[in-house]
Amino acid sequence: MDGAIELLSEHRCYDGAQRYYRHASREIGLPMRFSAFVPAQALGGKPAPALLCLPGLTCTEETFMIKAGAQRFAAREGLVLIAPDTSPRGAGIEGETASWDFGAGAGFYLDASEPPWSRHYRMESYLIHELLPLAIDLLRVDRERIGITGHSMGGHGALVLAMRHPGVFRSLSAFAPIAAPTQCPWGRKAFSGYLGGDETRWQDHDASILMARQDAAPFPSGILVDQGLADQFLEEQLKPDLLESACAKAGQPLTLRRHAGYDHGYFFITSFIDDHITHHITQLGRNA
Amino acid sequence: MDGAIELLSEHRCYDGAQRYYRHASREIGLPMRFSAFVPAQALGGKPAPALLCLPGLTCTEETFMIKAGAQRFAAREGLVLIAPDTSPRGAGIEGETASWDFGAGAGFYLDASEPPWSRHYRMESYLIHELLPLAIDLLRVDRERIGITGHSMGGHGALVLAMRHPGVFRSLSAFAPIAAPTQCPWGRKAFSGYLGGDETRWQDHDASILMARQDAAPFPSGILVDQGLADQFLEEQLKPDLLESACAKAGQPLTLRRHAGYDHGYFFITSFIDDHITHHITQLGRNA
Repeated sequence: MDGAIELLSEHRCYDGAQRYYRHASREIGLPMRFSAFVPAQALGGKPAPALLCLPGLTCTEETFMIKAGAQRFAAREGLVLIAPDTSPRGAGIEGETASWDFGAGAGFYLDASEPPWSRHYRMESYLIHELLPLAIDLLRVDRERIGITGHSMGGHGALVLAMRHPGVFRSLSAFAPIAAPTQCPWGRKAFSGYLGGDETRWQDHDASILMARQDAAPFPSGILVDQGLADQFLEEQLKPDLLESACAKAGQPLTLRRHAGYDHGYFFITSFIDDHITHHITQLGRNA
Repeated sequence: MDGAIELLSEHRCYDGAQRYYRHASREIGLPMRFSAFVPAQALGGKPAPALLCLPGLTCTEETFMIKAGAQRFAAREGLVLIAPDTSPRGAGIEGETASWDFGAGAGFYLDASEPPWSRHYRMESYLIHELLPLAIDLLRVDRERIGITGHSMGGHGALVLAMRHPGVFRSLSAFAPIAAPTQCPWGRKAFSGYLGGDETRWQDHDASILMARQDAAPFPSGILVDQGLADQFLEEQLKPDLLESACAKAGQPLTLRRHAGYDHGYFFITSFIDDHITHHITQLGRNA
């Protein structure tokens, strides 16, 4: 399996290009898909800032690009958008598609240590060591100006990967993240399946625990988190209060906006996506 | 079957409400679904302007609301958005779901005259005589300030319904409309099935023919049509040149924008949706 990258489709969008790709992934050991929006400024121009957008449970590389409405403002700001799939597909593991919150569509952006998941479910290594370098070359991304965001499970991924890989991401935000996965059913199910029963090993993948351990603010210019107060998963699964306390402990500036009436879906995300792009482009620098 | 209207779901979006409804349709004789975005200004306020958005082949009442990215600007302008389904569902006609361009998902916004379609496939009467009056009451829409737009088959619907029902719609636009359906395979298949073999009866549902018949411009403030030049259906199915000629003949001001590189999909629509909302709200009057 070589690293050939196939452009599946391309659509002009706000004078830029919305693209879907498939490639043979070295880290996953299976074909993987991802999507990218490349604004006009970055088509043939100098290296551009980019935002890695991690989707939530059950989503694919298409979801964010179709539903978030991010391209309009990204086009204006000259920001590349990159969205991966949420897990390997077709790993051939029994029960892989039996649950919507574990296995296919629910990779939790970590490298599984437990067989049979450990062979293919390596989303953390895939994103950091394969997709980002690939995107930097393919899409002419400035490696010094990459931000990360995500929704729900993808918000967990954004927070955790940003802290586990210092210096890779220069800006960080999240929509309704699973902010303390060791403390909620989604996270406990995923971590026990992918990482095994020793809960001490789960802590390295819990954003609130990782944040509380920081000696200094990892993002001194601030993290933006939006959370709907009518989100059906807020109390049981998301627990942004724990992240808020951890940020306070670490001296990490956090803007946690609680929005009355908003739920967990993409109509919430699209309502605030422009603010997130502003947050990132301000920290990454515009594509002047 | 009474006219009870069921709110299936509601999502806060840009401080307004994105809603999905189902109701027992008198005109269709089956349950029908529709969606609406109600901006904050119209929630409990005075009657608001509205835009009826007709989706294209294979789409549903969800497509436009999820993919077009229209809510952001509609929220700013105080414009209600309403999107119907593209046909009756579950009429129980043999072959109803066999084609993607005829039958379910392809009602062509007309009243079928031919059995077995004539019993339920009555999208024109449904929209004009049932959905609009219902929306006016339910969503507090100003009946004097309703515009219409649509995509592809829905662009055909917008153009034709606006001319067949003078005074109902005060503003008109379309994205990649089927502009001369008597001259293209999609239209000829649909019209022969729904209206029978007498082609003279088809002419009353062809936007270019209807326009050429006008004694005076039906929309003197102008019609806006956007068309992508990389649209895979442009030459065979859409034929905007025929509409352009008909508008010139009728003295109808038409802004037909041909966009290099854009295809037939929603990444094209979302790139220009703000311009359409501006076009409509300018003619309908803002929700001051």
